[in-house]
Amino acid sequence: MIIVMKPNATPENVEHVVKKLHKYGLEAHLSQGKQVTIIGVIGEKSVLANKNMELLAGVDKLVPVTESYKLVNRKFSDKNTTVKIGGVEIGGDNFTIIAGPCAIESEEQIFEAAKQLKEGGVSILRGGAFKPRTSPYSFQGLGEEGLKYMQKAAKEYNMLTVSEVTSVYALNIASKYLDIIQIGARNMQNYELLKEVGKTHKPVFLKRGLSATVDEWLNAAEYIIRENNSKVILCERGIRTFETSTRNTLDISAIPVVKAKSHLPIFVDPSHASGVRGYITALARAAVAVGSDGIMVEVHPNPDQALSDGAQSLTPAEFIELRNQIKPIVDIMGRKLC
Amino acid sequence: MIIVMKPNATPENVEHVVKKLHKYGLEAHLSQGKQVTIIGVIGEKSVLANKNMELLAGVDKLVPVTESYKLVNRKFSDKNTTVKIGGVEIGGDNFTIIAGPCAIESEEQIFEAAKQLKEGGVSILRGGAFKPRTSPYSFQGLGEEGLKYMQKAAKEYNMLTVSEVTSVYALNIASKYLDIIQIGARNMQNYELLKEVGKTHKPVFLKRGLSATVDEWLNAAEYIIRENNSKVILCERGIRTFETSTRNTLDISAIPVVKAKSHLPIFVDPSHASGVRGYITALARAAVAVGSDGIMVEVHPNPDQALSDGAQSLTPAEFIELRNQIKPIVDIMGRKLC
Amino acid sequence: MIIVMKPNATPENVEHVVKKLHKYGLEAHLSQGKQVTIIGVIGEKSVLANKNMELLAGVDKLVPVTESYKLVNRKFSDKNTTVKIGGVEIGGDNFTIIAGPCAIESEEQIFEAAKQLKEGGVSILRGGAFKPRTSPYSFQGLGEEGLKYMQKAAKEYNMLTVSEVTSVYALNIASKYLDIIQIGARNMQNYELLKEVGKTHKPVFLKRGLSATVDEWLNAAEYIIRENNSKVILCERGIRTFETSTRNTLDISAIPVVKAKSHLPIFVDPSHASGVRGYITALARAAVAVGSDGIMVEVHPNPDQALSDGAQSLTPAEFIELRNQIKPIVDIMGRKLC
Amino acid sequence: MIIVMKPNATPENVEHVVKKLHKYGLEAHLSQGKQVTIIGVIGEKSVLANKNMELLAGVDKLVPVTESYKLVNRKFSDKNTTVKIGGVEIGGDNFTIIAGPCAIESEEQIFEAAKQLKEGGVSILRGGAFKPRTSPYSFQGLGEEGLKYMQKAAKEYNMLTVSEVTSVYALNIASKYLDIIQIGARNMQNYELLKEVGKTHKPVFLKRGLSATVDEWLNAAEYIIRENNSKVILCERGIRTFETSTRNTLDISAIPVVKAKSHLPIFVDPSHASGVRGYITALARAAVAVGSDGIMVEVHPNPDQALSDGAQSLTPAEFIELRNQIKPIVDIMGRKLC
Repeated sequence: MIIVMKPNATPENVEHVVKKLHKYGLEAHLSQGKQVTIIGVIGEKSVLANKNMELLAGVDKLVPVTESYKLVNRKFSDKNTTVKIGGVEIGGDNFTIIAGPCAIESEEQIFEAAKQLKEGGVSILRGGAFKPRTSPYSFQGLGEEGLKYMQKAAKEYNMLTVSEVTSVYALNIASKYLDIIQIGARNMQNYELLKEVGKTHKPVFLKRGLSATVDEWLNAAEYIIRENNSKVILCERGIRTFETSTRNTLDISAIPVVKAKSHLPIFVDPSHASGVRGYITALARAAVAVGSDGIMVEVHPNPDQALSDGAQSLTPAEFIELRNQIKPIVDIMGRKLC
Repeated sequence: MIIVMKPNATPENVEHVVKKLHKYGLEAHLSQGKQVTIIGVIGEKSVLANKNMELLAGVDKLVPVTESYKLVNRKFSDKNTTVKIGGVEIGGDNFTIIAGPCAIESEEQIFEAAKQLKEGGVSILRGGAFKPRTSPYSFQGLGEEGLKYMQKAAKEYNMLTVSEVTSVYALNIASKYLDIIQIGARNMQNYELLKEVGKTHKPVFLKRGLSATVDEWLNAAEYIIRENNSKVILCERGIRTFETSTRNTLDISAIPVVKAKSHLPIFVDPSHASGVRGYITALARAAVAVGSDGIMVEVHPNPDQALSDGAQSLTPAEFIELRNQIKPIVDIMGRKLC
Repeated sequence: MIIVMKPNATPENVEHVVKKLHKYGLEAHLSQGKQVTIIGVIGEKSVLANKNMELLAGVDKLVPVTESYKLVNRKFSDKNTTVKIGGVEIGGDNFTIIAGPCAIESEEQIFEAAKQLKEGGVSILRGGAFKPRTSPYSFQGLGEEGLKYMQKAAKEYNMLTVSEVTSVYALNIASKYLDIIQIGARNMQNYELLKEVGKTHKPVFLKRGLSATVDEWLNAAEYIIRENNSKVILCERGIRTFETSTRNTLDISAIPVVKAKSHLPIFVDPSHASGVRGYITALARAAVAVGSDGIMVEVHPNPDQALSDGAQSLTPAEFIELRNQIKPIVDIMGRKLC
Repeated sequence: MIIVMKPNATPENVEHVVKKLHKYGLEAHLSQGKQVTIIGVIGEKSVLANKNMELLAGVDKLVPVTESYKLVNRKFSDKNTTVKIGGVEIGGDNFTIIAGPCAIESEEQIFEAAKQLKEGGVSILRGGAFKPRTSPYSFQGLGEEGLKYMQKAAKEYNMLTVSEVTSVYALNIASKYLDIIQIGARNMQNYELLKEVGKTHKPVFLKRGLSATVDEWLNAAEYIIRENNSKVILCERGIRTFETSTRNTLDISAIPVVKAKSHLPIFVDPSHASGVRGYITALARAAVAVGSDGIMVEVHPNPDQALSDGAQSLTPAEFIELRNQIKPIVDIMGRKLC
């Protein structure tokens, strides 16, 4: 932590700040510049969290030098975290595809999807049961019933499952049926939900918020891991910008940034990022090449009859084409497609 | 709803779309342009919500012509909604100040704040008990204990209270103590919470999400009102942009936009919008002049000892100065300051 | 300037940085923290501009402590700058309205506009002659011919004139006819043009770029003032965000921010900021109340026949209404409307 | 073009709009919906450009159905455009690397860079001579002198050259020395410069503006091509968003979007997009995989002595590593690296 004094700060102002720091058990190193004086703070800066040092007379601003997250910080682990679920390992040398329809619509539909995706080499099935929808008049999901269908289908085809929960209530229900719990973009800063999902000790698939910085996202992961649940998988799914030719703007740079700042595995969701079927395969190739650990992609047996997000769902045939296109890039990246 | 066909769409494509529309009980009006054919859809467009018309062969895009929210829509009410709570009326000819500390820190602190604000003419007291904080290592609020203190202080000084809830769990506790329930920016799209707060039938203070469009915000209000709770007060509190000299960017235009699109009252929160004490009074003046129905502002008996957001809290003396500065503008706007 | 070292930086790394600083005539003050070492740099930091200190081994990042602009900096002038043009003074106690059509369309049109605006108390006339248009197929302005018409009209009605230049070529022509030269949002970082307009020593009306930070904007002003032309008037006209219900997002906070960081006068353009006629008057009131020094507003004798931006142009009658609405707020702010 | 009427529009309002359309030689097709009436406009919509139809009584809004750019539109050319310069062809089956230092600093430096890059298989050399810098106190480039050095170096090593021009003045000088003229992000909407560079008939490397939509970018290209210069190469270099962990946000989706909307070749500049050396190679791999036609990357013989953007410049050794990493992906994409 650095405290920058105002140009017109008096020696008394500086002395007062230094005394305060000493009072809190911290050391102060002064640099008297030509225009301003800078005070380097040495010690456990968290003791300053609620001290409002910026309000002391003569203080211009505080400049944090280290990150506020700890357990997710790359500095705490040179080794990349991998998440093991059943026989599947996410991260490390694996490149994992998670696929399935946006929403579970019926037992028949999710069985059909599971069958086709299993044939396409997918071992983790996605499907929404609790849907967060902008308009209250849109289809809101089948809830518990849908999760039962998906669990049944996954058992039949020997797959794992992931689905979003939007409340503690939904979490309590969903935990019984799912292998991986997804926290969606709209709930990335729903801190109560993050704490509760941390306590389940189930693997968590944490999507980035629509307008969350990478630092806020890593702090959200910190909420989960602090509950002794280190099985967190991050997923970049596009951020909100001024550009309207895609639904969101895929922040592809976030992958190397996260790899530099954290040890957690990170996925890309090209379906929600673009919102347009025709762009998904190109973005999936980029996701592999940039170094992500997997993709989550929407596939529907009959996109034109989908109850949600049909326009961004691939057909099973288009999914096979996507898989064929990314396979050789996965190989080059020294990864195993699974 | 308008369906725009692709330039190379065949007559068969167009015919197929028209047949689909007829099947759903809708009428189709064709305009064959030089480059493209346009199909105007007539009837209740909500039947198309899950039909994925954009996936039919030859279709380029769908263009919605009307909004997806109904009950909050200006078209459904020429009259501005006012919200009555005890003897206080929000909206209409009143300009209302809600003030108090960011967080309730102790019984003494909230009593001190209430006393000073009451003397300053404020009749609605704010104070956070369940704090959503980016870092899990920051002060998280006193919870129920804090609400008890605030209720006691409000009773002593004959004030109403408002505080944020961050989960259904917090809502169930908070409902016992509060006159107005606040939904914060991070939970604006926490739809489960919106539905539950709708069912309480208590007045709801709904802040705009950090990156929510006005349309998404009005749709969030629709979730609440659909539960037969029409007592919704909107609050603009800054959106996320590239500019960093303020904490957020106050979207002052949102006030006339909301007034044009909806009949709900709308407030401005200049404290969170700017994050800098020195800018708050200027923004409060602008909030009055632009036509909002009130402001929510952070005031702390001793900002330099605040456990949360001290840097954006006014002192009681600064608050009185703010009140003095906005009073004549409130008068000019033909409003009553309360 | 502060240099933050990496957690794993060696004592040799630190020593190497310190030696470099000494070599450049600077002093270094070390603060050895628990996690990282911080080096405070003392002396004229501009000598480091091209030294790439961030590439030295062990360096994590550089943190600037002071701004890069000088002449426009509030620190260099406690007194607010006013710009005198003919008998008119911009800034100080005056609140100035600049008004006129988006584009000069004919001699008749600009005379009609001038006449009506003069009657409405306006003394500075605007009108575009060189129009920057997104599409090359839109009306591009009358060029020099238009400026001649406007000069003639201004002479007839004893007004001053302002118009945008989009190139050095246009500047050379326009200088002959105009009292104030406008640099538009799209050219705010056209540095060659900024230098040239600085050399004219004419008053410059500098609009903020669509996605320029306040710091970049003040640096743009610095380019002009460095050429010994201190007559710069800033104008906030909306920034680009994700919100689409207005053409741009008026950053109303920029006015107190600029007032804190600089001594230059600052205007608001509610017409371009909103792009919607119905919102302009509300935003003009806010512009007065927030403390700006004036507004620039589009008024057209017949908006429905305007060749450019008709939808955001006020009729003369609407302009009078705007003037009547802002007048009492201007009075309260202790300003003189002119 | 579609004209959407307001819900309360009268039959007379509709009739008046229809009459206007007929007057302009256009046809009108009416769709009377439950809530609103929609008017499809048939004919050459450009005649409406300056007619302000949105101001007619009862009109709610105009919805454009087709794009405003023509010559760059994919609809006008099924075939991808390639740009031939000397023996080099950009686009088609080639994946082209343009590399060199941010700024030309001396004859020695540019010769050293050219030598190393030629050995690394690069045939197009970049180097800045006219530098647009945010602060007037930063290094502004060597101007014509620099271009002479680069031309000499390129001749020696049999390379082509590209450099940015920031004004018509710079363009006139630079045309004598360069094979490709670059228009930078800050000048993407400097329309006078676009027209002039169009008239040179030299290949143009057009970077996307910091906050330009894809449609605005394609309209900028239209300005150039309208001057009978179809040799335009687009370059995505990051857009401005709220995220600060990278200098800009690389909009990787813009590549498939541009490929769908236009026939022009498109490059990626991972150096400016990220601003951080450690992320460039990962982004370059993504650029290849997503389907772009080439990359522009900053390489400096000694980045730690660079006068501009050293922190984002690769060393020659890092460049070779980048080349080695993208080569196999270029192969998989069916392209030839050159």
